[in-house]
Amino acid sequence: MGKMISEIKEQPAALERLLKGERRNIAGIADRIRKLDPAFLSLAARGSSDNAATFGKYLIECENGLTCSLAAPSVHTVYKKKIDMRRGVVIGVSQSGEGDDINETLRLARASGAYTIGITNTPGSAMAAVADDVILLRAGVEKGLAATKTYTCQLMAMMMLSASLAGDRALLAALDGVPDAVNETLAVESRVREITERYRYMERCVIIGRGFNYATVKEAALKLMETSYVVAQPFSTADFMHGPIAMTGAGFPAFVCAPSGRMAAPIRKLCGELRDKQLETVIASSNPATLKLASKAIRMPVDCGELVSPILYIVPFQFFANFLSVARGLDPDNPRFLKKVTKTL
Amino acid sequence: MGKMISEIKEQPAALERLLKGERRNIAGIADRIRKLDPAFLSLAARGSSDNAATFGKYLIECENGLTCSLAAPSVHTVYKKKIDMRRGVVIGVSQSGEGDDINETLRLARASGAYTIGITNTPGSAMAAVADDVILLRAGVEKGLAATKTYTCQLMAMMMLSASLAGDRALLAALDGVPDAVNETLAVESRVREITERYRYMERCVIIGRGFNYATVKEAALKLMETSYVVAQPFSTADFMHGPIAMTGAGFPAFVCAPSGRMAAPIRKLCGELRDKQLETVIASSNPATLKLASKAIRMPVDCGELVSPILYIVPFQFFANFLSVARGLDPDNPRFLKKVTKTL
Repeated sequence: MGKMISEIKEQPAALERLLKGERRNIAGIADRIRKLDPAFLSLAARGSSDNAATFGKYLIECENGLTCSLAAPSVHTVYKKKIDMRRGVVIGVSQSGEGDDINETLRLARASGAYTIGITNTPGSAMAAVADDVILLRAGVEKGLAATKTYTCQLMAMMMLSASLAGDRALLAALDGVPDAVNETLAVESRVREITERYRYMERCVIIGRGFNYATVKEAALKLMETSYVVAQPFSTADFMHGPIAMTGAGFPAFVCAPSGRMAAPIRKLCGELRDKQLETVIASSNPATLKLASKAIRMPVDCGELVSPILYIVPFQFFANFLSVARGLDPDNPRFLKKVTKTL
Repeated sequence: MGKMISEIKEQPAALERLLKGERRNIAGIADRIRKLDPAFLSLAARGSSDNAATFGKYLIECENGLTCSLAAPSVHTVYKKKIDMRRGVVIGVSQSGEGDDINETLRLARASGAYTIGITNTPGSAMAAVADDVILLRAGVEKGLAATKTYTCQLMAMMMLSASLAGDRALLAALDGVPDAVNETLAVESRVREITERYRYMERCVIIGRGFNYATVKEAALKLMETSYVVAQPFSTADFMHGPIAMTGAGFPAFVCAPSGRMAAPIRKLCGELRDKQLETVIASSNPATLKLASKAIRMPVDCGELVSPILYIVPFQFFANFLSVARGLDPDNPRFLKKVTKTL
């Protein structure tokens, strides 16, 4: 079995380890943040970790009522500017913990007086040394080039932190059910494998989601770009209607992430519009009415609520990217031009 | 002459009106911000205005040393959550001033205690009523569906505000030269027209820039998507190397925004890599060594420095989107499925 496909299937176990191993540490970090009463939080990341950070922004703003900014590392590393972060908390997110620009952002934030946290999978990494406190992902070494289990563990780490900070016992309890829910969701493998062949010659597509799942479609697009060389463009529903919809038309492939919750109704409405315009749609949802609008439906076996849904909804896209890569005669574990740790120019 | 092409050419006059008409108002707004000593700024926008806000984020962080967040309006409008913005300043950006979600974001920010500013082209708009203070773009009515002159005026309004807030007299003086510089830049029209035919059948491309010009490539991609139906994907250099480069290869079209300044060396290095990988590159730059690496070079006639460069570097892409649309038998003023004011689902 390939590395990517194995690691997709390791996700329930990895999430379980993270839940058990970091609960106490994260509760302590949440206490420290609460005492600081920060004016804002800031997340610094690149690649898949930046997609996880996109989720973190929505989560922190909705769950904690705090403004959350996504840092632009080049402000520090290229333009050499200092930002006053005294009244903020800065969280770096990196699988390897070796992204120079993210670590430099943390170092400068700490020097300016911010409390800094590193979320990483690598205990002895530079990030673990530079941040005030560290949350370890405990996903085990990620051997596949495409991040899978570290991405979902990053989502989980941010959920644990946000729920602890909000003192949201209901959410903390719900998180305990997530490893099993991901395990059940792995059953989409056969359906995804079945529909993949149809997209053997797809050269471009859009992937649409919104709110908490804007991160999911960004990450899904990145997986398709890096493993299958498809020009896959992620959009929030709102941005898609602001221009890009013009480039689509009959037969244009659109993948839609449609969980239950607040976004369900607007996303279903969009799916109806896409059908009226005769796009080819692949819809992941647990809602039968939404799935009926799809050219190809992926029925999600579990519905855990919208906030937790990004951990489940990336799974069919991880499988799809893996199988499409194989169907194209490529190797999802060895994409051209890429290395596991990217050095930013 | 079409509306879009006329409005591209109206930009020097529009920028001149904005510079003269809003200087005093913006100086007063900057004073109010300074007195508040905010912990962060937040920008709320959609579509082209959101691309201008992306520039605003880099500008405010680099020029003013303040953390700047890009608001996710759905936190308020869909998830119905409140964010504590007391210690922040929130700036809405909208050509029409009628984007319901942006106005709702401003309304809630003001209710939570933030000082709010609206940047709009429409004096009697809902945004002008909801914000504490208003900056008027004075671009004249924008008739083209694709935003052009209102986009560059939004960039200018943010530069004026940021320079006033920083008390940066050198930058304020430099801004006075921008309308003439844009006027000179309009001379790229003939070169852009000349190379456009070659891309008549281009179905997908990437557009790469970084830092202050990440906004430029986002806006360039949006213009191509809405007027010419090309799947155009914008990337910062850093993100591009983190995965998406895998989907390119010999002949794959990449457009590169390569102004002088801090990003010039890393962008030139990237251009060399793209040439080694035999991509088709269209490079906009004033640097002869960088232009030599291009399949098709667009020589920018003026070099105003990196901070101001986004106002100049969007111009060749505006022309390109217009001419490519025409070459494809489309009408850049009437893209399918779109209206001037988009209602967010």
